[in-house]
Amino acid sequence: MRPGDPRMRPTGTLLIIGGHEDKENERIILRELARLVGGGKLVIAPLASESPEEVWEEYETLMRGLGVRHVHHLRIEAREDGRSVRAMKTLEGATAIFFTGGDQMRITSLVGDTPVFSRIYEIFVNGGTIAGTSAGASVLSETMMVGGESGESHRIKGALRLAPGLGFARDMVIDQHFAERGRINRLLGVVGQNPRVLGIGIDENTAVVVEAGKSFRVIGAGGVYVLDASGVTSSNPAEEPGDRPLSVFDVKVHLLAEGDTFDLEKRRPDRPAGK
Amino acid sequence: MRPGDPRMRPTGTLLIIGGHEDKENERIILRELARLVGGGKLVIAPLASESPEEVWEEYETLMRGLGVRHVHHLRIEAREDGRSVRAMKTLEGATAIFFTGGDQMRITSLVGDTPVFSRIYEIFVNGGTIAGTSAGASVLSETMMVGGESGESHRIKGALRLAPGLGFARDMVIDQHFAERGRINRLLGVVGQNPRVLGIGIDENTAVVVEAGKSFRVIGAGGVYVLDASGVTSSNPAEEPGDRPLSVFDVKVHLLAEGDTFDLEKRRPDRPAGK
Repeated sequence: MRPGDPRMRPTGTLLIIGGHEDKENERIILRELARLVGGGKLVIAPLASESPEEVWEEYETLMRGLGVRHVHHLRIEAREDGRSVRAMKTLEGATAIFFTGGDQMRITSLVGDTPVFSRIYEIFVNGGTIAGTSAGASVLSETMMVGGESGESHRIKGALRLAPGLGFARDMVIDQHFAERGRINRLLGVVGQNPRVLGIGIDENTAVVVEAGKSFRVIGAGGVYVLDASGVTSSNPAEEPGDRPLSVFDVKVHLLAEGDTFDLEKRRPDRPAGK
Repeated sequence: MRPGDPRMRPTGTLLIIGGHEDKENERIILRELARLVGGGKLVIAPLASESPEEVWEEYETLMRGLGVRHVHHLRIEAREDGRSVRAMKTLEGATAIFFTGGDQMRITSLVGDTPVFSRIYEIFVNGGTIAGTSAGASVLSETMMVGGESGESHRIKGALRLAPGLGFARDMVIDQHFAERGRINRLLGVVGQNPRVLGIGIDENTAVVVEAGKSFRVIGAGGVYVLDASGVTSSNPAEEPGDRPLSVFDVKVHLLAEGDTFDLEKRRPDRPAGK
């Protein structure tokens, strides 16, 4: 099964983390992951990393420390592993998958369109949880950011690079380490190119919890930026020849903090009363 | 005369530069300054710098190289100089003042509310040009940014620091080195606190030319971000007790590039035809 499959209406939960989630103190975000896993089976997928064993060991310890009893390691070092019996067995009965950080292209090139990926997608469609941090967050988008200079306003024929992601988060492009790496310019570039997608920029130690693709709420210490280009009156990506910066008018920006929610269908933020 | 004086309706021009303007190649921004000076008298005010002599020498050479014949140095090393005969004499007949970079607080503490400043303001009101780059750009605001961590979403009781500026650019808060230092979060913080002011974030080697306080146009290589919080539906600075990040909904953002214009009265961007 592939993301485009019409039987694949998502009913699962996404936990999308902007990177550097707190691992020592309150651990709000990892605690939320533990809560979502509940008594289920969590599979850590350190596919983005060049040192997957270390990453696995760190998160195994962390998640066990937060009371998750069934924690497993998805070992995929080459594309062949994406159809291995061992990998399929690791996923058996899994209710949550966690993609950790590194290089998002490693993830898609290792498991894109493999049986392992189809299985993960099935888990999601059946109500499971897919979590990702840093590169593991970006990869959840349909179209993912893989590069693009942060410290410079976006050039049309320039540094901004996109690639197909895993497609769990529909109609969104996710960017992480957002305030920390000054990335609003590159995300404005993407939503300016196609206002269909919502730009979601997530700060470090901050996450959004997306329920059934319909809405999300913010947890953690930083901010979440939502860039909605649906009211854009003018942008120049197609008409301009050269290496000039993007110009885009009337993008709506919402900056959300912990407890704020966002309705993805109506594209409206909300701050629940009593916050 | 002070900025608040009702006789003081600005008719002059502001050239507000995001820092690191090109000094070697096309020099579009310094060339614009030279054009604005025309046959008039340009006074370089390196007040923000701890090495004002070096800065003066560099810009004197640059501006002479661009054909400006009358280039003078406003030497102010202590607050007493703000009322010195020498300084007042330097400003005699001046048609343009250029505040260079460094620390914006040095500028305001040296000349704020001195006869020298009143004289500079008069030059502006009488149709002269006030230019500023980097710290010299920030200081042109009514309320200026003097600090605030860039790499972190704005905390309400946090790192964001403001101080009274020189007041040439009314109803605006200017931030510079904008994309390069990832500053949209702190500027969102400011406009969220008071939607009366427009946030103007200017990239390096990029500038806005403000005509008579009514509109501006963009020149240079980077982008100019306009943050308009007039439609804000919700923001939390007043109601929240702690050190939590700002949350602000429905800020309109325009990203402008060279040739784009912005009507400050209507708060509308435009991209003139043929661009």
